[in-house]
Amino acid sequence: MTKPLFARVAILGVGLLGSSVAHAIRRKNLAGHIVGHDRKAALKVAKQVGFADSLSDSAAKAVKDADLVVLATPVGTFGALAKAIGPHLKAGAIVTDVGSVKGAVLADVGPHMPKGVHFIPAHPVAGTERSGPEAGFAELFDGRWCILTPPKGSDKRAVKTLTKFWEQLGSKVEVMDARHHDLVLAVTSHVPHLIAYNIVGTADDLEAVTKGEVIKYSAGGFRDFTRIAASDPTMWRDVFLNNREAVLEVLGRFSEDLSYLQRAIRSGDGDTLFNLFTRTRAIRRGIIDVGQDSPAPNFGRTPPPKH
Amino acid sequence: MTKPLFARVAILGVGLLGSSVAHAIRRKNLAGHIVGHDRKAALKVAKQVGFADSLSDSAAKAVKDADLVVLATPVGTFGALAKAIGPHLKAGAIVTDVGSVKGAVLADVGPHMPKGVHFIPAHPVAGTERSGPEAGFAELFDGRWCILTPPKGSDKRAVKTLTKFWEQLGSKVEVMDARHHDLVLAVTSHVPHLIAYNIVGTADDLEAVTKGEVIKYSAGGFRDFTRIAASDPTMWRDVFLNNREAVLEVLGRFSEDLSYLQRAIRSGDGDTLFNLFTRTRAIRRGIIDVGQDSPAPNFGRTPPPKH
Repeated sequence: MTKPLFARVAILGVGLLGSSVAHAIRRKNLAGHIVGHDRKAALKVAKQVGFADSLSDSAAKAVKDADLVVLATPVGTFGALAKAIGPHLKAGAIVTDVGSVKGAVLADVGPHMPKGVHFIPAHPVAGTERSGPEAGFAELFDGRWCILTPPKGSDKRAVKTLTKFWEQLGSKVEVMDARHHDLVLAVTSHVPHLIAYNIVGTADDLEAVTKGEVIKYSAGGFRDFTRIAASDPTMWRDVFLNNREAVLEVLGRFSEDLSYLQRAIRSGDGDTLFNLFTRTRAIRRGIIDVGQDSPAPNFGRTPPPKH
Repeated sequence: MTKPLFARVAILGVGLLGSSVAHAIRRKNLAGHIVGHDRKAALKVAKQVGFADSLSDSAAKAVKDADLVVLATPVGTFGALAKAIGPHLKAGAIVTDVGSVKGAVLADVGPHMPKGVHFIPAHPVAGTERSGPEAGFAELFDGRWCILTPPKGSDKRAVKTLTKFWEQLGSKVEVMDARHHDLVLAVTSHVPHLIAYNIVGTADDLEAVTKGEVIKYSAGGFRDFTRIAASDPTMWRDVFLNNREAVLEVLGRFSEDLSYLQRAIRSGDGDTLFNLFTRTRAIRRGIIDVGQDSPAPNFGRTPPPKH
């Protein structure tokens, strides 16, 4: 048997992402010992599911002697968490995270990292609308990209080790500047989530259309948005508060473009609509060609039950 | 063997919807003869797939002696199509459609219907992002709602027969006023499509983010929108041009709500975000509870291929 990549891994936060990291570590035997940390209620569930070797409700205790520490709580908690674990980190340890924003994470966590600890933020671009310790699964990262945003002067060996770790979890790894990451993800993830949450809210507020009708006729397209709008509220609140600048920039462009379409509809300008609707098809083809979505119609949805 | 519901059914337009109607008719043996009409190029494909008993590039000839005529071309063509077939319709025939808007269809088709012909618009709330005669399948309508919008004074027996027809195709049937239909569908289908097309266009236009990056990192949420934004451009252009009033009404509310969220992000008002994100989860649960979407995470997507 080969030696695992890390003797001891601490996962702080055992929700969808944290528990999936644990499952994927076990699948490939990448750690000698996995310790999970969270609040007591979450630990109770984690214990039942059983993806960690030990559990602790103290972050400071959990990181003791850990060679790899993974921050997997909502990003709004990172500053306080980093402050709490900083003095207890092992020299030479790698600290990383799975947060969806990277600039704010560098700013919040960086100052609390002691000398000799390697802090290398990471963002696996993967997820589902589920949350909690029971939602994780080992295959979550298979075929997905994981973006590392090492700060200037990062230890090359640590970056290499973390790259290997994510590849072993099933991901493809890319290294990127944190600022650029935050703009790219604002487009491919944050603003899409915001407009999904928003349209579901708009529909829920319409007096002339009942909630029952919205639900009944959702197969016309709306139901796709409700999946995203069922994502974890705390996590997403923190994403928007911590990637403000890029989200507002992309949102401004989105609204401008939407006003242009609105005007085209009002004036009966079919060509403007047709041209956009043709151009957007090519992006879908690209996504399917590189294996980032299922080619099956309707995502290959399981057929609805008969009522 | 029981007598089929209709001796002869004419399907005008054999794309995703028209060909699916034909497949579903055959599954339950609902017609003695199915004649398909479309442009020559589409008929060539239809012939290969083989879901009709005969094919004709003349709509006037196709409707001759038909007991049921289904308009399944983009709704922008309905006026001219109705004018062309009007004089050739059989007395007592039922004329229906599968268009996504209903007020404009009543206005465009109604005047061309001769006395003794029953015109009852219908909208099966079902579809995929595919289009063309090869995209259809018999199960498309299973468990989905079909909305009938019979004009005032419609023949009750004809409505009953059409209801039975759609139930046999696998649908659940609801009768609704055309104006209300157009508002409900603006919320559950038309505006969602518009904002999906729009965000995909916005992403494609961002100079600071390459198309390759948008595609690579699409698993963060964006890819869901690209599925909808890959829908048939002609069909959707016609939907927006023919449901202008309701689409602009819902779009106005959507933009208002989005500005409110934008302001919350700018001012760091996490509670406003958290409250909305919590409320929208309930709608998703409702949709899953009534069987209008798969309960599996990520729509039960097939896992991505490894590269």
